[in-house]
Amino acid sequence: MRCHLKIEVSLKPGHSDPEGETTAHLLRELGYNVVAVNVSKVYYVVLEVKTEEEARNKAEEMCKRLLANPTKDNYTIVIEETK
Amino acid sequence: MRCHLKIEVSLKPGHSDPEGETTAHLLRELGYNVVAVNVSKVYYVVLEVKTEEEARNKAEEMCKRLLANPTKDNYTIVIEETK
Repeated sequence: MRCHLKIEVSLKPGHSDPEGETTAHLLRELGYNVVAVNVSKVYYVVLEVKTEEEARNKAEEMCKRLLANPTKDNYTIVIEETK
Repeated sequence: MRCHLKIEVSLKPGHSDPEGETTAHLLRELGYNVVAVNVSKVYYVVLEVKTEEEARNKAEEMCKRLLANPTKDNYTIVIEETK
């Protein structure tokens, strides 16, 4: 079956977010009253698996092996659809 | 008041997503049965405004002027919190 996963990878609190800071700076230059910007990335992954449990386990593995940096990133995994 | 906005910027359907394709390729090399990967970006913006309506209008403007490329990107704006 095909499992549609939404995996969001964001920086752990306290880690500097240069992309967010640059975006905040540019938005302020455009005249917006921006207090802060944080940026995260979302991976929409379609995975061929046998069970939802397998999908969740594989997604955890993928985060640890490739998508997230365990030192500085948090991640959340949501199963959006299975068919 | 401070308005917490979540702005997700993703590619319009049909536009090529090199980052997603590379990620899919790497995940397949690691042994996962990946059908497809699409990547999008989320901006968490804290904005100082007078009303929620102003926040929504400013967020629309920010997308058009800086965060999204109208030719190839879709965006969604969600007001997560106001205080």
